Amino acid sequence: MIEVDQLQKYSLFGGISPEQIETIKPLLGTEHFEAGECPQVEGQPNDKIYFILSGEVEIIKKGLVIAHLKEGQTFGEMELLDIMPSIATVRATTALETVTISNRVLYDIFKLDLKAFSMMIMNLARDLSRRLRRMDDIVSSEGKY
Amino acid sequence: MIEVDQLQKYSLFGGISPEQIETIKPLLGTEHFEAGECPQVEGQPNDKIYFILSGEVEIIKKGLVIAHLKEGQTFGEMELLDIMPSIATVRATTALETVTISNRVLYDIFKLDLKAFSMMIMNLARDLSRRLRRMDDIVSSEGKY
Repeated sequence: MIEVDQLQKYSLFGGISPEQIETIKPLLGTEHFEAGECPQVEGQPNDKIYFILSGEVEIIKKGLVIAHLKEGQTFGEMELLDIMPSIATVRATTALETVTISNRVLYDIFKLDLKAFSMMIMNLARDLSRRLRRMDDIVSSEGKY
Repeated sequence: MIEVDQLQKYSLFGGISPEQIETIKPLLGTEHFEAGECPQVEGQPNDKIYFILSGEVEIIKKGLVIAHLKEGQTFGEMELLDIMPSIATVRATTALETVTISNRVLYDIFKLDLKAFSMMIMNLARDLSRRLRRMDDIVSSEGKY
């Protein structure tokens, strides 16, 4: 059972009222993984964002662990939007509980509550913008342009 | 005078009907620059996306020219969304005609036509996602994670 206040702490739901979250909630999926299982594999199809409710994952790129994520964090933002192959592998390092929004569900939210949809996409776009700035810092500080 | 079919070729207006563009059009700004002028300066405030109607610009980062853009291309996507300082300097290399959407105008579009707004943000987010994938390729191929 997903609680509204659990979802409110994720930046994707910023500016969305508890009532709107309540309306959207029935559309959301939940997925459980055991330690060692991979919700997402680099180069394989994915069209979902995952909200980590509990547990931890590692992000693996070309065989190297490049980051760790835990409760309150998300992965799959880009795949949700562009339905392109996964950019990295995500492996559960503990038992993992997630809430998911697939591209199809995103479209259902679009039809159900356009205002909530537009806020979510705006939040998502801002998040991607922040990540792009960080990447840009890495690339430009290394003189890789 | 901006024409609807001029705007339709930009990815930001993908999926938006000519009628919707016609509605939004009066909100859009136009700006002209002479060769040598800079619509955007690295580290300085900016909150606008610029659509290049004619002319060319160079993108300068830490004093180095890292890209060229021309008619049909855009810059300022990230600044429009997050209103953070400009990530790079953009310098006109010819006379330059642009159409602009500021963050305030984006909010006006939100109030005027929520569906068009949500499509535009979706297009913007997909564009950022594509750029993030390209940056990720650069960073990971250099082993910089």
